[in-house]
Amino acid sequence: MLTHHDVTIRVRYAETDQMGVVYHSNYLIWFEVGRVELMRALGFDYKLMEIEDDTFIVVADVHCRYHHPARYDELLTVRTSILEAKNRTLKFAYELLRQSDNKLLATGHTIHVACNRAGHVKHFPDKYKQAFLKLVVPHASRSHA
Amino acid sequence: MLTHHDVTIRVRYAETDQMGVVYHSNYLIWFEVGRVELMRALGFDYKLMEIEDDTFIVVADVHCRYHHPARYDELLTVRTSILEAKNRTLKFAYELLRQSDNKLLATGHTIHVACNRAGHVKHFPDKYKQAFLKLVVPHASRSHA
Amino acid sequence: MLTHHDVTIRVRYAETDQMGVVYHSNYLIWFEVGRVELMRALGFDYKLMEIEDDTFIVVADVHCRYHHPARYDELLTVRTSILEAKNRTLKFAYELLRQSDNKLLATGHTIHVACNRAGHVKHFPDKYKQAFLKLVVPHASRSHA
Amino acid sequence: MLTHHDVTIRVRYAETDQMGVVYHSNYLIWFEVGRVELMRALGFDYKLMEIEDDTFIVVADVHCRYHHPARYDELLTVRTSILEAKNRTLKFAYELLRQSDNKLLATGHTIHVACNRAGHVKHFPDKYKQAFLKLVVPHASRSHA
Repeated sequence: MLTHHDVTIRVRYAETDQMGVVYHSNYLIWFEVGRVELMRALGFDYKLMEIEDDTFIVVADVHCRYHHPARYDELLTVRTSILEAKNRTLKFAYELLRQSDNKLLATGHTIHVACNRAGHVKHFPDKYKQAFLKLVVPHASRSHA
Repeated sequence: MLTHHDVTIRVRYAETDQMGVVYHSNYLIWFEVGRVELMRALGFDYKLMEIEDDTFIVVADVHCRYHHPARYDELLTVRTSILEAKNRTLKFAYELLRQSDNKLLATGHTIHVACNRAGHVKHFPDKYKQAFLKLVVPHASRSHA
Repeated sequence: MLTHHDVTIRVRYAETDQMGVVYHSNYLIWFEVGRVELMRALGFDYKLMEIEDDTFIVVADVHCRYHHPARYDELLTVRTSILEAKNRTLKFAYELLRQSDNKLLATGHTIHVACNRAGHVKHFPDKYKQAFLKLVVPHASRSHA
Repeated sequence: MLTHHDVTIRVRYAETDQMGVVYHSNYLIWFEVGRVELMRALGFDYKLMEIEDDTFIVVADVHCRYHHPARYDELLTVRTSILEAKNRTLKFAYELLRQSDNKLLATGHTIHVACNRAGHVKHFPDKYKQAFLKLVVPHASRSHA
């Protein structure tokens, strides 16, 4: 059973700052890459979700905890899972791992609201909601993790 | 008594995305502008803090809640305050307001750890800590806010 | 007679890279700020140009020469002028100056094509073209500069 | 004989703007990915070039021509070649191709100067120069291309 999706990121020079590590806002961009690829793994194309179903997944809430800095040229894994899928909201969790030693660099979550192009809240079309729900990690198994 | 500091941001075209609103990670960059200018208002130059005092304010935790989208060319206020100043950590709070109607677009906080250039945790030099402490909003007044 | 427009930029931490200077692609974003503010000084609002006149100024060509690095927290002037205004194209020139010593850090230009929302080339509405033309530095005066 | 190196980029949501296409400064970041991967294909690690050989490849000049817009989620090829390798400078050329139809979206070049950490111009260490030279496309063959 699929419970999460992994995607590889190579840190770009542009993503570093003068402290010699990755500037912290870039992690949110990597999380976006993680959830888009998780959706692709579920058989959905986020681009078409916007165009064909007039459904945008607007970011409503972001949290990120930075444990260890990511550095230029490192290969990282963004591990994305779905914590919660409701009629109009969706909650993703992320782990950022350094591939060389599997060290956990950061953890985070994002909460999203389904909106149409005009920005009004709507229900997720059913095909998406069903797919998201299959992926939601049951609370019981999470509590034993 | 100074309890917060306001700085004005003009939204750049580069900060928008194809949804027609500001991409969410840019808010963290504006928060950075907010805390740097708050420090400048306290008489400190973050640049010199790095160079002269070997003290870097590393981001350890970020949270942002997005209430309403910011849009291209809008003038925004980043309102920054200090929630907590300890020996080695510092917690900032942010409000992002649209200047045309004073609407609250986003709220957030960041937690920072004092580190030296090598990335090791250290105490904030006393002059900074004293200045930060003067700005911390007492819990009592916050609870009545 | 207005021949150029100056706007002030404060370098953000996010714009630096691990070489300790500003990452080079950010200069293009500052150039964008420069031309938007030049248009505002001419009495135009680029936002309304998109919405009310269905005219987008699409970037077709960019050149930048980097003379000296910009650094964190520096105050810079983006000096923008119009080199050429034709029916469907517009050419801007930029100088980036460090305010502390007026040193020239970079020079550049951008060429733009007027397009409608669908991305098709169109003529600039006359009111814009007339305003742009007033600003174009005559070749004669440029050659004596 | 290796004459260029191809690397694949997937367009991120963060790279789009409200015109619905990729914001133009991001192409420069992709060019950077292109030259780093070209160097890796030559057996060099740019990260180690900075650390072990105190050699930084500072950007001195950038040009980009935008033929057709890149869009969200597209797979692109950055095709990088070396136009010129001198003692202290290096010139790269780039082609950006859309993988679905092999359409040429943009072309560009960058000129770089070898510097040490302090920012002073230096000669490229010989091992790099020899490797770069092997890749330089001879003018004769270029004129027949």
